[in-house]
Amino acid sequence: YVDQTIDHFGFLEDGTFKQRYLVADKHWKQPAGPILFYTGNEGDITWFCNNTGFMWETAAQLGAMLVFAEHRYYGESLPFGQDSYSDSKHLNYLTSEQALADFAVLIENLKSTLPGAQHSPVIAVGGSYGGMLSAWFRMKYPNIVVGALAASAPIWQFPGMVPCGDFYKIVTQDFARSGYNCDANIRKSWKAINNVTSTVSGLQWLSEEFNLCSPLKNVMDTVTFKNWLQETWVNLAMVDYPYEANFLQPLPPWPIQVVCKYLGFDSTVSDYELLHGVSQAAKIYYNYTGTSSCLNMSQTATGSLGYLGWFYQACTEMVMPMCTDGIQDMFEPEEWNFQAFSDECNAMFGVRPRADWAGTVYGGKDIASHSNIIFSNGGLDPWSAGGVNYNMTESLVSIVIPEGAHHLDLRYSNDHDPPAVRAARALEVKYFQKWISQAKKAPQTSEPNI
Amino acid sequence: YVDQTIDHFGFLEDGTFKQRYLVADKHWKQPAGPILFYTGNEGDITWFCNNTGFMWETAAQLGAMLVFAEHRYYGESLPFGQDSYSDSKHLNYLTSEQALADFAVLIENLKSTLPGAQHSPVIAVGGSYGGMLSAWFRMKYPNIVVGALAASAPIWQFPGMVPCGDFYKIVTQDFARSGYNCDANIRKSWKAINNVTSTVSGLQWLSEEFNLCSPLKNVMDTVTFKNWLQETWVNLAMVDYPYEANFLQPLPPWPIQVVCKYLGFDSTVSDYELLHGVSQAAKIYYNYTGTSSCLNMSQTATGSLGYLGWFYQACTEMVMPMCTDGIQDMFEPEEWNFQAFSDECNAMFGVRPRADWAGTVYGGKDIASHSNIIFSNGGLDPWSAGGVNYNMTESLVSIVIPEGAHHLDLRYSNDHDPPAVRAARALEVKYFQKWISQAKKAPQTSEPNI
Repeated sequence: YVDQTIDHFGFLEDGTFKQRYLVADKHWKQPAGPILFYTGNEGDITWFCNNTGFMWETAAQLGAMLVFAEHRYYGESLPFGQDSYSDSKHLNYLTSEQALADFAVLIENLKSTLPGAQHSPVIAVGGSYGGMLSAWFRMKYPNIVVGALAASAPIWQFPGMVPCGDFYKIVTQDFARSGYNCDANIRKSWKAINNVTSTVSGLQWLSEEFNLCSPLKNVMDTVTFKNWLQETWVNLAMVDYPYEANFLQPLPPWPIQVVCKYLGFDSTVSDYELLHGVSQAAKIYYNYTGTSSCLNMSQTATGSLGYLGWFYQACTEMVMPMCTDGIQDMFEPEEWNFQAFSDECNAMFGVRPRADWAGTVYGGKDIASHSNIIFSNGGLDPWSAGGVNYNMTESLVSIVIPEGAHHLDLRYSNDHDPPAVRAARALEVKYFQKWISQAKKAPQTSEPNI
Repeated sequence: YVDQTIDHFGFLEDGTFKQRYLVADKHWKQPAGPILFYTGNEGDITWFCNNTGFMWETAAQLGAMLVFAEHRYYGESLPFGQDSYSDSKHLNYLTSEQALADFAVLIENLKSTLPGAQHSPVIAVGGSYGGMLSAWFRMKYPNIVVGALAASAPIWQFPGMVPCGDFYKIVTQDFARSGYNCDANIRKSWKAINNVTSTVSGLQWLSEEFNLCSPLKNVMDTVTFKNWLQETWVNLAMVDYPYEANFLQPLPPWPIQVVCKYLGFDSTVSDYELLHGVSQAAKIYYNYTGTSSCLNMSQTATGSLGYLGWFYQACTEMVMPMCTDGIQDMFEPEEWNFQAFSDECNAMFGVRPRADWAGTVYGGKDIASHSNIIFSNGGLDPWSAGGVNYNMTESLVSIVIPEGAHHLDLRYSNDHDPPAVRAARALEVKYFQKWISQAKKAPQTSEPNI
């Protein structure tokens, strides 16, 4: 734990809190061996630590120390303890800028207190929002980190940067290629749900069919149910890994292919048959291990993620427009409605999102003057829609893993890894080595012009 | 005026205020002509506007629009109107990070609302603290500005970066080279003041000799008096321009030479004679025009600067260690005492400075990965002690003007300008043109690696 200033950007609030971080120095070559620094995202840092095998496998090769830093307001790093989420006053210090400042202060602290670390080059590593933080960390604090690996980091999933529909298009493509008629039947299922739930007995049938913990009671619950299903398909797209894994949920290899086995109907299927298939599919996601007594709509993935905190961040800085049209994607059409979103945020937290701020402060598409950032993206991952998928400059590079889901490259290597992810990891390590050797050369000085 | 968010880094305070900015578009070439953007510092923006003739003279050559943006909490840009300075709660949003965010938002606003400005490359220009802001603006928002001219910007005048005594050494050198025994007699004067003010009649004599508006009453006043004199010598070093000018005060050409004419005593001078010389010298600074009825110790320079605001900033982020030893400089020895300074800040504002923060957030000496910043410094200017005086990289360049005082290069050109400042201005414009033509080439894209 390290003492962190609650407000790095103001001096009225001068309290501190304990930020948690994990260190592994087994392979670290003192002095001045490199540090791989995981820029923690919206959840418990031990969970990210356990799901970032790439860092563990790379430590020996680089003689590196590993540091996993927890993001404020998540896990045990709560600025106001149990009160951290109590109101907008306590939530006011939950921003990405404060989190980056925490990381900077932590690294300076480690460098000044750990013998042998003073001249250690530090490389930021992160996935998803943690990957965005890694990229932004290198952009804003190049004095602190020599480079960054931003895995599956949708730094362009902000207003005006990418089409709002691309995210769900990718989800749809994943299902389309994973089984006959799979996307088409999901597209059909929404209407089937509407039809079936128009009667009380239909609501009851659906609740039983899906073995829901809380049965559906009315049309509001039907909306919740459809949102929950939609999120289920999205999550499956994120974790469509080639081997058995437990990231958001325990799942079989290529889980979408497994799910799609239940969704291969021809066009003549009845609503009830179709929804039976959907329920079988959903149970793959929610009950692969067979240990769930019922399906809980209020939790779609691991409890290690902090949903409320992330929702606050989405309601302030992390405004990520999403939309569906039901044609290029398999979901019910829904436009992006900023005003409605803002009103929802205001009702929930008493704050309103600032649509343009992230673009202003983190540069949007105008980031070419920065350096030493790898943007890796998986072709199966819907978040790649908002990612950097081309080389911007010689040192702002993109690595695309066509058969990769959400930051597959950060996971432990596996016999079933596709060749592209093996190549990606090797290339990432090559860049790390390049940055480390760059850092070892002292900055050159020359004479004044005049 | 533009509406600005009071707190860019938190969402609880969602109020706005009117930020003032000045625009001159007489020479602007639409569309996409460049914009020279003055990053306002601690004072009324009209005053900086009138003292930055370089921008006015350059506008025609570049076909540029000029924008002068006022820094929040100064001039008319008061976040809480008359209450802005009432307590630490209202002062909480007076930070350089907030000011930079204001500039970024203002520029994005201008680009989206001014016809023809959308693709205008913007260059930041500033002097002194405004120069620090220009440099930091390019570092933190390279998406907003293509380059920066940081004139006389002491970005390294922070703890651990440069020796604390260098500032006063330069002041001393200025006096040493401007007249026989000039520095030696000032060094002697402190003891003379102590001697003379040890009696009530001596206090009265000194007050009359200096024609002080408020006569000295006790030993506390003597300390104030010496601090005021010390600040007077510093200010003279800052504005030791080769021609008659009115920056901090109306002054003759090479004012230190004029001042030193009264301080050329040999070693045998009496305390009273010496202090008579000092008083003559001080009156050059405070009453060159002959219109002051008495010398006011509470104001050492123009009323266009916001002293209280700057003191708050010094008490929070802008911690600039200074010290004297009385040997290499002409002042009474005084060590840098962070704790005493912190206590003073706490008593005055209820805040404590964070000694390391500026170095962490703005990179200290580790800024070589940034680009397109000119650091210009004058050899006579004490602030050059904390400036960048060598080329760090090909695009982080230093321009030294040996005969220059505080940001002489930003002033209107003058027949008495030394050749070095003419060369400096020409080189600065050359860099501006280079950055502008770089910006006109669209960023190149290439294929993904894998």
